[in-house]
Amino acid sequence: MPETATTAGEATPEAHGSYEPTDRTIPTRGRPKASYDRALVHSILDEGYVCHLGFVRDGAPVVLPTLYGRVGERLYVHGSTGSRPLRMAGGPRQPDPGIAVCLTVTHVDGLVLARSAFHHSINYRSVVVHGVARQVTDPEEKRTALDALVDHVVPGRSYDSRAANAKELAATAVLRLDLEEVSAKVRTGGVNEEPEDLALPHWAGVIPLVTGYGTAVPDKDLDAAVALPDYLAAL
Amino acid sequence: MPETATTAGEATPEAHGSYEPTDRTIPTRGRPKASYDRALVHSILDEGYVCHLGFVRDGAPVVLPTLYGRVGERLYVHGSTGSRPLRMAGGPRQPDPGIAVCLTVTHVDGLVLARSAFHHSINYRSVVVHGVARQVTDPEEKRTALDALVDHVVPGRSYDSRAANAKELAATAVLRLDLEEVSAKVRTGGVNEEPEDLALPHWAGVIPLVTGYGTAVPDKDLDAAVALPDYLAAL
Repeated sequence: MPETATTAGEATPEAHGSYEPTDRTIPTRGRPKASYDRALVHSILDEGYVCHLGFVRDGAPVVLPTLYGRVGERLYVHGSTGSRPLRMAGGPRQPDPGIAVCLTVTHVDGLVLARSAFHHSINYRSVVVHGVARQVTDPEEKRTALDALVDHVVPGRSYDSRAANAKELAATAVLRLDLEEVSAKVRTGGVNEEPEDLALPHWAGVIPLVTGYGTAVPDKDLDAAVALPDYLAAL
Repeated sequence: MPETATTAGEATPEAHGSYEPTDRTIPTRGRPKASYDRALVHSILDEGYVCHLGFVRDGAPVVLPTLYGRVGERLYVHGSTGSRPLRMAGGPRQPDPGIAVCLTVTHVDGLVLARSAFHHSINYRSVVVHGVARQVTDPEEKRTALDALVDHVVPGRSYDSRAANAKELAATAVLRLDLEEVSAKVRTGGVNEEPEDLALPHWAGVIPLVTGYGTAVPDKDLDAAVALPDYLAAL
């Protein structure tokens, strides 16, 4: 699938160096420490299917799960043109003030079981992005964003599906969020334990969590001549 | 593990009926429709390991992944007493105004691949809880909450670990969020497709995502006499 490299690969030349820490991305407390490494941030973002998008409505926080895609240093989320965050972000018919958002992606990798209740934890990888999301109005960028959203679900899939038509493009609003104020947190490894607890008779260690793919379920109307393509069979 | 029923089971008598829809939990748009069914909400919450907790800081949204536990109609999250949302919620030394939060839990169950890019989707189950979180100051409730947090990682685990001591309790802040303004969304099933796309030569269907447990990794200092307990081997 050399085409896949067009989207995912755009990041490669940029995936060096680090994001600049800011007041919002420097944690007040807590291990693990934050990381600002671009390559790490990209890898965590690219592995997720759903992000949690936070915005403020009438002074109160709202957190909704939503699909996303990445093109280099830009994230895209989409939704119906009538959905709340997308209406709040303005659009072609009104000046676009943008909408302050926080976009978070988390993978849970393992259960950390300590001898003490206090030291129970989770191995995880997360990315938190702060910024102002703005509606994408340029038709070319919108197409690129929608391809990225489809390719985020399965890399290369946008090349094996019918592209959006004018009506579908008009019904879909896309928000862009630049990767500028970004941090990652990763907890790996085993249990932390108080030295005096080591002799306690409780099992301690890590139970890894693994995610995999089940058997593909073809659409009931699928033409029998259409076989499962290699890029899906390889999952 | 009859003890497990003490925590998880408290919900059983209440897990009937529905939450009252509010302006915030009635979606403006979009399928799937929201559900307010208590049993469904509880089942989605109990299956998750990490929630995404949103709050507002200096007018901007913040979304952080964090562990949580449920006791009946109450959710608990915890953190260091110095962490931001916990300091913002006040505590024993100051009047507790609470902190407006939105707590969201999402499971991704499958990739929905349509013949058209537009109809690509995800099968998922999510719960969104709106409310005001307040610090737990009652020592008994705090202990119950911390047990629930540990038992949420592995049911019954709080009985097979050393309970928090006074110093650990003092270092841990716990926030409570009542399940009052709550909705669930579930997408299941196959692809939606435009009738005119059915004959296109693209594979369409659902790729299920499955989560499982890997082989338990014992702590390097674990006494060889401490075997993996049945409730962990059963995972």
